[in-house]
Amino acid sequence: MKKRLFTPGPTPVPTEIMLKMAEPITHHRLPLFEEVFTETNENLQFLFQTKQPVITLTSSGTGAMEAAVVNLLSPKDKVLVVRGGKFGARWAEICQAYGIEIVPIDIEWGKSVSPSAIRDVLKKEADIKAIFTTQSETSTGALNDIEAIAAIVKDHKALLVVDAITGIGVHDLKPDDWKVDVVVTGSQKGLMIPPGLAFISLSSQAWEALEQSKLPKYYFDLKKALKTMDKKQTPWTPALTLIIGLNEALKMIRKEGLEQLYARHHRLAEATRAAVKALGLELLAEHPSNVLTAINIPSSVDTGALLKYLRDKLGILVAGGQNHLKGKIIRIAHLGYMDDFDIITAVSALERGLNQMRYNFKIGSGVEAAQSFLCQQK
Amino acid sequence: MKKRLFTPGPTPVPTEIMLKMAEPITHHRLPLFEEVFTETNENLQFLFQTKQPVITLTSSGTGAMEAAVVNLLSPKDKVLVVRGGKFGARWAEICQAYGIEIVPIDIEWGKSVSPSAIRDVLKKEADIKAIFTTQSETSTGALNDIEAIAAIVKDHKALLVVDAITGIGVHDLKPDDWKVDVVVTGSQKGLMIPPGLAFISLSSQAWEALEQSKLPKYYFDLKKALKTMDKKQTPWTPALTLIIGLNEALKMIRKEGLEQLYARHHRLAEATRAAVKALGLELLAEHPSNVLTAINIPSSVDTGALLKYLRDKLGILVAGGQNHLKGKIIRIAHLGYMDDFDIITAVSALERGLNQMRYNFKIGSGVEAAQSFLCQQK
Repeated sequence: MKKRLFTPGPTPVPTEIMLKMAEPITHHRLPLFEEVFTETNENLQFLFQTKQPVITLTSSGTGAMEAAVVNLLSPKDKVLVVRGGKFGARWAEICQAYGIEIVPIDIEWGKSVSPSAIRDVLKKEADIKAIFTTQSETSTGALNDIEAIAAIVKDHKALLVVDAITGIGVHDLKPDDWKVDVVVTGSQKGLMIPPGLAFISLSSQAWEALEQSKLPKYYFDLKKALKTMDKKQTPWTPALTLIIGLNEALKMIRKEGLEQLYARHHRLAEATRAAVKALGLELLAEHPSNVLTAINIPSSVDTGALLKYLRDKLGILVAGGQNHLKGKIIRIAHLGYMDDFDIITAVSALERGLNQMRYNFKIGSGVEAAQSFLCQQK
Repeated sequence: MKKRLFTPGPTPVPTEIMLKMAEPITHHRLPLFEEVFTETNENLQFLFQTKQPVITLTSSGTGAMEAAVVNLLSPKDKVLVVRGGKFGARWAEICQAYGIEIVPIDIEWGKSVSPSAIRDVLKKEADIKAIFTTQSETSTGALNDIEAIAAIVKDHKALLVVDAITGIGVHDLKPDDWKVDVVVTGSQKGLMIPPGLAFISLSSQAWEALEQSKLPKYYFDLKKALKTMDKKQTPWTPALTLIIGLNEALKMIRKEGLEQLYARHHRLAEATRAAVKALGLELLAEHPSNVLTAINIPSSVDTGALLKYLRDKLGILVAGGQNHLKGKIIRIAHLGYMDDFDIITAVSALERGLNQMRYNFKIGSGVEAAQSFLCQQK
């Protein structure tokens, strides 16, 4: 049975990239690796839309989130955390593990944060050192308007930190132009390679903040990483086969172009949303991200059985809900190495699963809606 | 030009493993991955010779070292650190980054620690919480006698922590029998896979110490890792292609058997040392490890030029010295996926390099010595 991933990470990896990573192992102290790493770092700046260096860490995305916290802050600092899902909550957990005081803005899962709510907190709490937020909240498919948030934070001395782990390469994000101080992401998302690498970029103001930070750090010490980067190296042995794959993926991304990349993800998301609507289903997210589509599943349908049927009978892996949304939603990712026919496939599989679960709908209506949308677009 | 790695990590990766890792990407929440991870965890216990769980981290070996420090200790704890090279010094750096007081035993690089020196410190400093040491010090090729050290530490309440990053799979280490509390290693060494994973095992006493530890942690939180391991998962998305490769590597190791594995490394190391002697050269290490052979290079030979010649003209990558030993030694690793003919190749290349550098010796004497040694053994 052919297997297809529609999960928000890991995402499909192009076979060319898998084979490139399977070439005989090399050594990170060789000029060849240094060339690859230099090219990779330039292309990461292109993807991140920043003139600042983008640091590569050997860890999951959570490691880069921890790097942001431990490099920017000092014990007892106060920060604002936007919690609208599992990954917003993770910012709070990391901060609390390090004794940072958090002021949360809690949002119903599926909703996006109102930028004015951030303004209100900043007015009341003048000593907020940093704002931790999420571009695309992967647990709900909700998109936060980082440009609008940045416009508010700009006049405040607090640093704006954005988890763009699934957002990078899908939604526009201009750290230098908008004044976003820290951006983090991971490798197994829009970057189309296996998990094991994470990335973090810092504004010049954030780099300055590092000098004041007193939280303990060693493996995730970004000053050390920046220093070794000048020598085309990482402070610790990097996951070098993944960096070799990353270099290929970034060349593909650069060839496609950022506007086309964002437009493709928007197109695929819109087609998916059109299909969901045609099937009589509803989206969880008020402002849905183009990363994934979170669909409310009617209580008459056994969501666990639906996911299992898709996985075991059709080879289609779709994510379920997390925490209190478990059993209530499914999440179809259209992230990374995806095209029109992948969406038609996902919708086709969803219809077959829903039919198996005796959900009442007109067979073919979802596929027809996605197809019509895709054909109407150029 | 064929390229060959004789570096103490990354080490050669069997092509079968590279190709296994190049198979279509899977997802870590699938039953297939859970089966692989379960099998891997069992085989890690076999390799580590422990009944305790071995935790897999997505990081370099340094990440596992940091995990040991932040999970065992609390601010202002006092620890003993054996510093006989770059990696012993790293234990001290990590401890100091977290505000731990260190009592160092400094050894000349190339020497091994005397177990009685550890006994003396423990007698004087009753409040030592942990002893950080290194089995095979990769920067010098010196072997420390962990069994003898463990025998001394056994009667003390301090925890014994061993960096076995290059030692695992090369030198015997019996954490449960000898009472070694913490063992750490990395993936790109004896485990024969690319860098990106690290491993740590803890004794029951060390697991108890975790309950008291007050240093901050999140990504490297081992209690969280242990809890998710029960569900055949990791707390954060793991470098799953590397785990798939690891599973294959561990099956190879298990098939070979631990005794055979240690004996093979001993044989290859002895052959290399016989060649070095025949060439009129000296070893740096007083008690050389079977991981790598560190060779003192006479001042008449330009070590940098020698390494460059080996690398660029012969495709043979050998490591130089680190810190103050730079330019004074070369390090030939015989670690991991290595056999007799690899050693003959390394010695042959070394002779050609030395000849090019006008070092005075009888051409063929090194190869002859290695060959004689290998033929005399069964």
